[in-house]
Amino acid sequence: MSALELVSKNRCFHGEVRKYTHQSTSTQSKMTFNIFLPDAAVNSTEKVPVLYYLSGLTCNEDNMITKGGALKYLSEHKIALVAPDTSPRGCGVPGEEDDWELGTGAGFYVDATQEPWAKHYRMYTYVHSELQALVGEMFSVDAKRTSVFGHSMGGHGALVLALRNPGHYRSVSAFAPICHPSTSNWGRKQFAAYLGANEEDWRKYDATELVKEYEGEELPVLIDQGGDDPFYKSKQLQPSHFVIATESSRRNVRLENRVQPGYDHSYWFVQSFMESHIEFHAKHLVQ
Amino acid sequence: MSALELVSKNRCFHGEVRKYTHQSTSTQSKMTFNIFLPDAAVNSTEKVPVLYYLSGLTCNEDNMITKGGALKYLSEHKIALVAPDTSPRGCGVPGEEDDWELGTGAGFYVDATQEPWAKHYRMYTYVHSELQALVGEMFSVDAKRTSVFGHSMGGHGALVLALRNPGHYRSVSAFAPICHPSTSNWGRKQFAAYLGANEEDWRKYDATELVKEYEGEELPVLIDQGGDDPFYKSKQLQPSHFVIATESSRRNVRLENRVQPGYDHSYWFVQSFMESHIEFHAKHLVQ
Repeated sequence: MSALELVSKNRCFHGEVRKYTHQSTSTQSKMTFNIFLPDAAVNSTEKVPVLYYLSGLTCNEDNMITKGGALKYLSEHKIALVAPDTSPRGCGVPGEEDDWELGTGAGFYVDATQEPWAKHYRMYTYVHSELQALVGEMFSVDAKRTSVFGHSMGGHGALVLALRNPGHYRSVSAFAPICHPSTSNWGRKQFAAYLGANEEDWRKYDATELVKEYEGEELPVLIDQGGDDPFYKSKQLQPSHFVIATESSRRNVRLENRVQPGYDHSYWFVQSFMESHIEFHAKHLVQ
Repeated sequence: MSALELVSKNRCFHGEVRKYTHQSTSTQSKMTFNIFLPDAAVNSTEKVPVLYYLSGLTCNEDNMITKGGALKYLSEHKIALVAPDTSPRGCGVPGEEDDWELGTGAGFYVDATQEPWAKHYRMYTYVHSELQALVGEMFSVDAKRTSVFGHSMGGHGALVLALRNPGHYRSVSAFAPICHPSTSNWGRKQFAAYLGANEEDWRKYDATELVKEYEGEELPVLIDQGGDDPFYKSKQLQPSHFVIATESSRRNVRLENRVQPGYDHSYWFVQSFMESHIEFHAKHLVQ
């Protein structure tokens, strides 16, 4: 297990926001994450549930924790939050800095199989396995009470993680997720680069395909979508595909899908509905 | 009155965040501000109260509105928020970019009298007079219900505005304000540059001096100070000077002063106590 290096620590809402870096074995690079620990976890007086937040394209570990407005509610419910970066950085992979939709800031929460990405771009394993093991070992959290949520590309990541690992995540939610990446430019472009031309290999990273075959415990899902989101209008997100697949496949998925008129794709939208996402997860995490 | 140019508009918490620029007559430069309008003001169904927020050194119009966590509470109470920039920018004043404590980002909410600052660095008149007249004219706000608050240098600005204009602001609050700038490096340095060597001229921009001579309506004041704020420890802020001056001069000022253990000078601190500041102003603004 990699050693953690503390970058910063700030008191906030009766808890602490800490930024750490560590050398990741999954991505063979330095990785950075923020963690919010309510005082019960700071003082190790109890093991608190933990919620993972996955950010979108061009984002890093900071966007949500500075602009999401979640910390008050996490503190009230005594839930830890972990917000990792969205990709490895500075690995020297050819082309990683050339396109904001690919490489740096655009890991898409997959394990790449194609060159030049396969060595470093392994964000699925990093987030689902390595980071969670590290957090479980290093902090006063109860790993049996874990949930996940995210925004846009990170909403896609959250849905994929939860649908592929029944029973691991108690609940999943997303703000404006990329719901059917095999059929939208956001998705097809990255999957072709990271996973190759065989579209069969894409299915395990596509929430709409995964929900058709979901097996296991009931999975509570909450999705919010801004009605004036330009990426929604240009069909990059396609929540209706996910809704139809969920309803028609009749799997053990309990979906609440909401469209919020007038809201766009930004953190102005995300923060407006953060309280209800934290309340949703708290219902499933806090006992 | 200058024309407003809309830079951006985003829906947030049942209202809109808008950024505007305009040519200021006070600063003879382009100035930028953010405004949050709850839907009642967006739709002009009523005139809502308005709260001005003044930011600190190195900040601009964005820091508080993106990281302050105020919008939910403003929306609930139907209060508009105006967050201006902290100085003119790009005026070509010699030295304006050389020092983060002077010039750009460091207007200190004074009307400079000294060269080379006197022409452009007139943030007192800009915020108290020009901006408020503009907002009152252009938006559905009730200028008779105005309050002011701020952080650090902006906390100083808020206290000075309120103490110099009895009856104009219904309430004033501050996060870690510079309370006695005539006696701390943050203050003496800027006052010497903007106002000159005669310290008598500094008194009208010093909250601790002003409170000794406050006349007029009862002024409710709330101050929060982080106990682990390095600038508090190095005596740049000196809330105790303001407390002692208020108590000993027995003026019509109702002060609540709080020290919050463990919190620092950042927006992690500011956001943690934002709700109670908005509640404080709402008591005085909403009827």
